[in-house]
Amino acid sequence: MLTAKAYAAPSPTEPLVPLTIERRDLGPKDVLIAIRYAGICHSDIHTVRGDWGPISYPQVVGHEIVGEVVEVGPEATRHAVGDRVGVGCMVDSCRECEQCRAGNEHYCLEGNTQTYASVDRDGSITQGGYSTHVVVDEDFVLKIPESLPYDAVAPLLCAGITTYSPLARWNAGAGSRVAVVGMGGLGHLAVKIAVAMGAEVTVLSRSTSKQEDALAFGAARHVATGDDGALDGLRGSFDLIINTVSAPLDMDAYLATLRPEGALVNVGAPPQPLPVSVFSLIMGGRTFAGSNIGSIRETQEMLDFCAEHGIAPEIELIPAERINEAYQRVLDSDVRYRFVVDTATL
Amino acid sequence: MLTAKAYAAPSPTEPLVPLTIERRDLGPKDVLIAIRYAGICHSDIHTVRGDWGPISYPQVVGHEIVGEVVEVGPEATRHAVGDRVGVGCMVDSCRECEQCRAGNEHYCLEGNTQTYASVDRDGSITQGGYSTHVVVDEDFVLKIPESLPYDAVAPLLCAGITTYSPLARWNAGAGSRVAVVGMGGLGHLAVKIAVAMGAEVTVLSRSTSKQEDALAFGAARHVATGDDGALDGLRGSFDLIINTVSAPLDMDAYLATLRPEGALVNVGAPPQPLPVSVFSLIMGGRTFAGSNIGSIRETQEMLDFCAEHGIAPEIELIPAERINEAYQRVLDSDVRYRFVVDTATL
Repeated sequence: MLTAKAYAAPSPTEPLVPLTIERRDLGPKDVLIAIRYAGICHSDIHTVRGDWGPISYPQVVGHEIVGEVVEVGPEATRHAVGDRVGVGCMVDSCRECEQCRAGNEHYCLEGNTQTYASVDRDGSITQGGYSTHVVVDEDFVLKIPESLPYDAVAPLLCAGITTYSPLARWNAGAGSRVAVVGMGGLGHLAVKIAVAMGAEVTVLSRSTSKQEDALAFGAARHVATGDDGALDGLRGSFDLIINTVSAPLDMDAYLATLRPEGALVNVGAPPQPLPVSVFSLIMGGRTFAGSNIGSIRETQEMLDFCAEHGIAPEIELIPAERINEAYQRVLDSDVRYRFVVDTATL
Repeated sequence: MLTAKAYAAPSPTEPLVPLTIERRDLGPKDVLIAIRYAGICHSDIHTVRGDWGPISYPQVVGHEIVGEVVEVGPEATRHAVGDRVGVGCMVDSCRECEQCRAGNEHYCLEGNTQTYASVDRDGSITQGGYSTHVVVDEDFVLKIPESLPYDAVAPLLCAGITTYSPLARWNAGAGSRVAVVGMGGLGHLAVKIAVAMGAEVTVLSRSTSKQEDALAFGAARHVATGDDGALDGLRGSFDLIINTVSAPLDMDAYLATLRPEGALVNVGAPPQPLPVSVFSLIMGGRTFAGSNIGSIRETQEMLDFCAEHGIAPEIELIPAERINEAYQRVLDSDVRYRFVVDTATL
């Protein structure tokens, strides 16, 4: 067994603390990654606090991981020692179901193995990226283009693919009008990616506090949805809405801002069911959909796209000792736009 | 002014009665149609009873119309006297908005002119197909292939296009697994059309009362959804679900029967908002959508498709004097599968 330094949640209610954990010995196709940077995703907080169900403790989270390959298994051929690589939300899948065979590991019918708090193929619980090292099957390791800034690239592995995938699937591009609801970790990347795809982007955000940033990221306009009647003025405006907000919104009001055959795609996941009027969908042939990360192939495509277009997340780099403070600031929406942990401080 | 015999609703609560109505004199591009058959759609009943808002009375409904051209305006070129033609849910649109220019009259941004209970371009209220004659701009008149049975073809003009359009848009075809929820006027055509497109079709219906018919129409199987746990056994089964039911269903239970990236499309329109769990959509990248008729171009495509594949609605032909009785039977779901009025009896 290898050991690695990490920052772990000891329980649902206590702050995260330093901890030494074990990583498995390298299997034939595994790679050992020396983690350099790990992004903090809101999902990390939901998971350690048990918001999405009970987990076992101690638990290390983090699924926005970048680092260098320091050792490879004897049959690993896709990555070499010294390569700059990344790991996102998945580290394995069944490889045998029709979805896996079609390259859709994120839809694995057996359920893929998540990067943390998931039962691994050997029965252990996966431990995430707030750590100095991780061992991952090479098929689930991404190549990080050298042109992307090393400290800022990590959030692409979750926030980047989560927004890229629906933008690509619903054909955001030249001539399309895209709205991004909420401009946090996910939303700011949705804006940058949609702009790079050629779409005309509108940011729908409660207040005007991020208006300047939205325009700097390339958005054509920013609308403060907290203003009375703001959405009424946008009826029939958008081909595609990417909703990154996890709080319940008035879906019918947002659906009404779609053009005919437009789609509203949620990547934010409010816990409670949302009431939707079927008339909002029938009139204009509109779509309400959801999207969840993307395949490994598409994640690589996204990384290459971001490198080609010079897209990097906006980050605040922190030492490990500030993770608990960062959690509170994420909950307070007080980050522009993603915390990244420098794992050298672990 | 021309006059026509008709059957009209005198108020929201009284039975329909015979009435002589006026039709406009032919404009340059109008055609005068001698109506032969008119289908009874559930929308007709909702409209005359004011379920969808107040209307003016007396009102003639019916938007599944077939007949022969008996006169054409001086500039009409698309249809000739003697042609067998049809009229569906629309009789005009603005012709100028981007949707109309793109051939999507059903999405006209000004709102298209509905075949009945709609304000026409001359300010009058449109009167529908339970009538001996109607005057319609030739651009909104469909050609009825001669091979389709004259008395049974009418329901294709609404029920046919309403189900064909989402099946075509979501690529029902060889290798795709399609479920049809509810097998009434819309549903039985959804089954026949999806089968003709090459899809493997499952009918989801409350009881087994229509199972034999479902299989006769070409469905591969029928599942009685009223049985305990019936939907649990279907998790991850379908690429596309066409929901023709206007009563509220447990949408999350139906969404769970979709395969990854599958779509549930409502053509039934329950009046109350439906609660939808966003997790049902995010997991598997699923879609909940609505669909409303189709363009004139697509309606013609549907008629030609049905002629090519020998698809005709199952109908019960009735004289006008039985319209009120038929309304009650529609409300009781006691029709296999569509009433058609023989207008010679008006």
